[in-house]
Amino acid sequence: MSLRLERIDHIGIALSSIEAGLELYEGRLGMPVVHRETVEAQGVEAALLDVGDGHIELLVPLGPDTPVGKFIEDRGEGMHHVAYAVENIERAMEAAAAAGLELIEPEPRIGIRNSRTAFIHPKTAIGVLIELVEPASG
Amino acid sequence: MSLRLERIDHIGIALSSIEAGLELYEGRLGMPVVHRETVEAQGVEAALLDVGDGHIELLVPLGPDTPVGKFIEDRGEGMHHVAYAVENIERAMEAAAAAGLELIEPEPRIGIRNSRTAFIHPKTAIGVLIELVEPASG
Repeated sequence: MSLRLERIDHIGIALSSIEAGLELYEGRLGMPVVHRETVEAQGVEAALLDVGDGHIELLVPLGPDTPVGKFIEDRGEGMHHVAYAVENIERAMEAAAAAGLELIEPEPRIGIRNSRTAFIHPKTAIGVLIELVEPASG
Repeated sequence: MSLRLERIDHIGIALSSIEAGLELYEGRLGMPVVHRETVEAQGVEAALLDVGDGHIELLVPLGPDTPVGKFIEDRGEGMHHVAYAVENIERAMEAAAAAGLELIEPEPRIGIRNSRTAFIHPKTAIGVLIELVEPASG
């Protein structure tokens, strides 16, 4: 059983202002906004912008005690995680665990745009928070 | 003149050991290594691994006084930059400057695999070091 990462699905960017993020990524870098959503379970206001067949995901914390709020407090604004597309989230999670990678939670979560996602702990991935994402079909 | 970013070309990861990086990205995450190179001008030993039509670029500093060495000293191992593919590096640099983004150097540099690259300063990009990369043709 191998962990087949199909492509870089998106890069998550932690920042303090959605307006400033859109001004940079949409306004200056020219990426079209394709989705906006408040994901209460993850404590973020999010925006997805297209670049090629991948995305930039802007993440603004809903409060200082959220994971992204704490990330910004500790490290400042910047790259927060990298997400790889997988075909099936449960199989990918099994393969990741079998490869010795520690999953942050044992079950997949519903993420932005009804994707199913799981995170690998940065301590088993040389400092990088890795997301596995099975995009919603259709 | 607009800055047309074609796709996420790669994510640069700063780390202290190329062996540990390959063990994770090739061994556990299953990405094939497609290129290895020491880029003296940038003070790094680098490895490129395929994922979809993009790459992960592992960057190990040649010494503590290199940019990547200082990055690890300040922030620890982790995501270092995101690179977007562009068709023509000079035109992309002009468009970036016209959009108010500060380029770190005024001329393109030769990067890994004979690409031509330029970096946008993170202070004008909400904490993210952005690379523009024109891959070598053929």
